[in-house]
Amino acid sequence: MAAPLLSKKSVCIVTGATRGFGKSIALTFSKKLPPGSLFILLSRNSDLLNEVANLVQQRADIRAVAAVFDQSSNNQDHFNNIITDCMSNSEVSPTDFEQSLLINNAGSLEPLEFLRDLDNIADISNFFQTNLVGCVALTAKFLQLFKPSVINSRVIINISSLGAISPMKSWALYCMAKAARDMMLKVLASEEENVRTLNYAPGPLPTDMLNTASENTKDPDLKKWFEEQLAQKTLVDCDDSARKLIAVLDKNTFENGAHFDYYDEL
Amino acid sequence: MAAPLLSKKSVCIVTGATRGFGKSIALTFSKKLPPGSLFILLSRNSDLLNEVANLVQQRADIRAVAAVFDQSSNNQDHFNNIITDCMSNSEVSPTDFEQSLLINNAGSLEPLEFLRDLDNIADISNFFQTNLVGCVALTAKFLQLFKPSVINSRVIINISSLGAISPMKSWALYCMAKAARDMMLKVLASEEENVRTLNYAPGPLPTDMLNTASENTKDPDLKKWFEEQLAQKTLVDCDDSARKLIAVLDKNTFENGAHFDYYDEL
Repeated sequence: MAAPLLSKKSVCIVTGATRGFGKSIALTFSKKLPPGSLFILLSRNSDLLNEVANLVQQRADIRAVAAVFDQSSNNQDHFNNIITDCMSNSEVSPTDFEQSLLINNAGSLEPLEFLRDLDNIADISNFFQTNLVGCVALTAKFLQLFKPSVINSRVIINISSLGAISPMKSWALYCMAKAARDMMLKVLASEEENVRTLNYAPGPLPTDMLNTASENTKDPDLKKWFEEQLAQKTLVDCDDSARKLIAVLDKNTFENGAHFDYYDEL
Repeated sequence: MAAPLLSKKSVCIVTGATRGFGKSIALTFSKKLPPGSLFILLSRNSDLLNEVANLVQQRADIRAVAAVFDQSSNNQDHFNNIITDCMSNSEVSPTDFEQSLLINNAGSLEPLEFLRDLDNIADISNFFQTNLVGCVALTAKFLQLFKPSVINSRVIINISSLGAISPMKSWALYCMAKAARDMMLKVLASEEENVRTLNYAPGPLPTDMLNTASENTKDPDLKKWFEEQLAQKTLVDCDDSARKLIAVLDKNTFENGAHFDYYDEL
């Protein structure tokens, strides 16, 4: 049987770490990983980064370093340096760890339009810049830094969605990006040694993104569904979903590159 | 039983129409569609456009209009005007036709790199601009012009690939874009009335793209496979594949938004 994936001293990089599910992952994982593990918390939101870093470091044997990261950036240096700068600032190197984790959580939702209305080149371009381009580049930089020769366990999690495998009316760009990101990890799983990858769909979560969904979804039936979920408080708790992800990683029997949903049986 | 999809007087828009499979679709479909149909041939390659238009118009009762189209453009006017300009130049309007077809064939292949080497923001961005952004915008413009109120049959074909559903080593961007474009038509199929959409994987074709694949694919096993296909001439003929697509559209029993491969049984 494969060893549980969160049992090794790890460097754990989380994008979009200041809010919603990213924050839940950072806090929940920080209670799970062994002493000496380091969290690299990345987010556009500089105000909240230190707050989340402090929460992670409530465990005295876990460290956290935070950095402002804009996944939509077209500045090459930003991607070249973001992880290595965080490592240097923490005075650690990749060989100080037994495992590296990258949680590709950052993403955006809008524009939420029917495909017939998605004619604005700049809007579409910005969407894919944030959700695909930056995600690919950061993942490449992660793989370059944590080479198989310096670390023998690498884990990459993509925060996916039901929309990656099932079309949602008036959510074309979101579904397209999620499908593409799922495929990214499937290709990666076929290419790399010493890597475990998983596309995890966390269920409908009570985040800012869900508020946006319930306000701005154009398809009336889907909009109503989001409104009802909000009103009836039937959404999945972020921490519960993060713990389900931990259980999946603990069990470590998933097919490399698989799509796994919160509601799937473990 | 549903009526065959190519039996109506149509306006048929083909992107990437000057070479390879796009050219085959234009020529093969031109022999199939009823008199009075109009082809709108789009391509970056201005030299070859008139040549293909002339070949299409070898049938006296079929017209063709050609225009230079750059799917990677970030010029909004380019997308706003390309189809309407072609219609105006041909002195026709959407109501002159019983059916409109859009064949989203244009796309690019490189950079062909392992994911760990895909760290160049500009390269990744350009790739998705060509393969996703322009494709979404052109499709939206098509849907706006050919509204259900002016035409009661609309057909959108995405030229897909096995890579849309099955990961290919060192082809991450290509597989991601193809997966996203498949999803685009799945969402579209759920959103629109009077639309039939199909993701068609044409099989390995002896095109310029396949030469590039056999020369530049980084994964040695996959590179060898392409080289062998080329050497043994076991590739699928472009016209054969276009005729298989016609057979699928004639039968017209596919699930809306489905992925259909050349090798699938009809």
